[in-house]
Amino acid sequence: MSNQPAHPTLFIPGPIEFDDAVLQSMSHYSESHVGAPFVAVFGETLQMLRKLFQSTDPSSQPLVVSGSGTLGWDLVAANLAEPGDEVLVLHTGYFADSFADCFETYGVKPTQLKAKIGERPQLDEIEKALKEKKYKLITVTHVDTSTGVLSELQKLSELVHCVSPDTLVIVDGVCSVGCEEIEFDKWGLDAVITASQKAIGCPAGLSISYYSGRAIESFKSRKTPPGSYFASFKNWLPIMQNYEAKKPSYFATPSPQLIHALHTSLTQILSIPLSERFAQHKAVSQKIKQAVADLGLKQLASNPADQASGMTAIYLPENVKAADLLPSLGKKGVIFAGGLHKEIAAKYIRVGHMGVSVMDEGRGDIEKAIEALGVGLKEAGYQKA
Amino acid sequence: MSNQPAHPTLFIPGPIEFDDAVLQSMSHYSESHVGAPFVAVFGETLQMLRKLFQSTDPSSQPLVVSGSGTLGWDLVAANLAEPGDEVLVLHTGYFADSFADCFETYGVKPTQLKAKIGERPQLDEIEKALKEKKYKLITVTHVDTSTGVLSELQKLSELVHCVSPDTLVIVDGVCSVGCEEIEFDKWGLDAVITASQKAIGCPAGLSISYYSGRAIESFKSRKTPPGSYFASFKNWLPIMQNYEAKKPSYFATPSPQLIHALHTSLTQILSIPLSERFAQHKAVSQKIKQAVADLGLKQLASNPADQASGMTAIYLPENVKAADLLPSLGKKGVIFAGGLHKEIAAKYIRVGHMGVSVMDEGRGDIEKAIEALGVGLKEAGYQKA
Repeated sequence: MSNQPAHPTLFIPGPIEFDDAVLQSMSHYSESHVGAPFVAVFGETLQMLRKLFQSTDPSSQPLVVSGSGTLGWDLVAANLAEPGDEVLVLHTGYFADSFADCFETYGVKPTQLKAKIGERPQLDEIEKALKEKKYKLITVTHVDTSTGVLSELQKLSELVHCVSPDTLVIVDGVCSVGCEEIEFDKWGLDAVITASQKAIGCPAGLSISYYSGRAIESFKSRKTPPGSYFASFKNWLPIMQNYEAKKPSYFATPSPQLIHALHTSLTQILSIPLSERFAQHKAVSQKIKQAVADLGLKQLASNPADQASGMTAIYLPENVKAADLLPSLGKKGVIFAGGLHKEIAAKYIRVGHMGVSVMDEGRGDIEKAIEALGVGLKEAGYQKA
Repeated sequence: MSNQPAHPTLFIPGPIEFDDAVLQSMSHYSESHVGAPFVAVFGETLQMLRKLFQSTDPSSQPLVVSGSGTLGWDLVAANLAEPGDEVLVLHTGYFADSFADCFETYGVKPTQLKAKIGERPQLDEIEKALKEKKYKLITVTHVDTSTGVLSELQKLSELVHCVSPDTLVIVDGVCSVGCEEIEFDKWGLDAVITASQKAIGCPAGLSISYYSGRAIESFKSRKTPPGSYFASFKNWLPIMQNYEAKKPSYFATPSPQLIHALHTSLTQILSIPLSERFAQHKAVSQKIKQAVADLGLKQLASNPADQASGMTAIYLPENVKAADLLPSLGKKGVIFAGGLHKEIAAKYIRVGHMGVSVMDEGRGDIEKAIEALGVGLKEAGYQKA
């Protein structure tokens, strides 16, 4: 149940619906960004991020900076690679193209390993690529928001550590952190970048990321200075370390209201075992994917092992247009998203199912989404073959 | 009067106290960043920024991006200068040093023209500097938050246009936009960068900036690509133009809640003539500066013409330490800021007086601040000589 004003329910793959208490934290009275009360809240928030990433290694480093999720690409490209470095970008949709653009901005040389739409690069192809060149880092989009394809991280990381042990393992977790299992230390990851407005359940405006001690050491041994000022580890690492030690310090003014909201959201997430949260996302995802199959529709990600738990990308029937269906669903009070993958954007829609809509069953969000989709398709003239 | 929970009143030079309606907008229910309702709000916000800058030239360009005020330096350094370009940085305190660092990050060569603490570079010195070298742009900190020094923009801009007409005039207005007069078009400015949490009166988390058609043309004629990805005009200009035309588009997810709060705050600001707002800030500033003088204290900015309207930086009496006075003021329910200029940080304090604390006299904030300062100094053993 929600105390928010009546509004269409948001089922796009981010921003998601937010919990009342999180939204309430957004209107926190103004505080000094270097005052003890706020510094304590920021410090606790960083400590909770360690738990969210299931990380206990004290050499690892959480980072929270005002910005969009996109800023995470700059954080990686400007700090963890140097001009001229080769990097391997695993491609499962729109976001790998953009990450590659970001690397090029900083003089880093990306090689993309592309999968067919709805699939992901296979381990044997990745092994082959890693053996061909020395890569400073490899990037993988954990869940590609444009296709709903889930990448497997644990075996990938094992492979990289085995075949090319100096290569850093970088995860774009914008659409996965908070709804897909991530064991940062155990899986040997070096960086996960994400944003606040998806499964973490806090309004947009925060770039959230997490780095291994190895990644930080790699930064410290750079031969060239970082390629960005606002995204520079040199500027931010001391600030984050001070906040976590509850000491005031200043590089750029953080957003106290957003940090309060993130604190509230992480407190809620960590109030039950993470395993239960991930299991609930998986169960709800299965329910939605079953409903999609029952309607006779296909997902972009055809292999169940490649399907994300927090979103579903669905091919439209041939006679149904997204430009008709989405507004019709909007009138029923549910907002779905259109396609984003350039090659097939008009041919599919995307449904997000993350956070409070999944965890707070009393809201009835999921049933509402499934029912609206069925009725909307029927009204659009679609009948299961 | 405010409906917010009891809390110490914030008199630091940003973040400031926020109006109830602005904070309420921060907890707006979740919306799609590409849905018609939010796109309309973002578009109106950009249109209101044109009015805030008193600009009617359709070739000028407002920009609102998730980030801290600091991101504005990257926007300028990565888009309006190219590697190898010479730029002239007028120095009135801490922030010019940082802006210069930012230029160096992007391969741009800053020359700093430094004034004594509490003063600003004089027009004849600036003219001399402009004649010595060809500068791509000149930067001026309108109000240096570390010293409370106000720079004069109109005559400066006239001088630059006269002596070095190709040089872009760039204003760091983080601590001035919303409380100091700025006539963007009339004064021939090329960029003003600012942030949400000072005199604009919206919580931190937005980098807000404004560019002349000439600045945009200068960007378009670059020989090298922009030096940043997240701060790239190439990525953001089409998005801002689309939002203002009420067309959805996507580069990085904006923060709908912060944009709603900015919309509310700008609506309030523009509800009376800007001239009244600036006059009220000047009147309240005079009141505070008179109280400071009555206490027998001196400002860092000794020349009245160089004194900001939105903040005051005050030298402490010899026997009073900021580390004692600030916590004692905190106990009286008012939060002032310590010194920030590296050379003299322990010797002075800073008081912000911007936004709702100035405009909503019913809150009684200003009287509270003045009284607390007098009592706090007395309790610290200070007596006027």
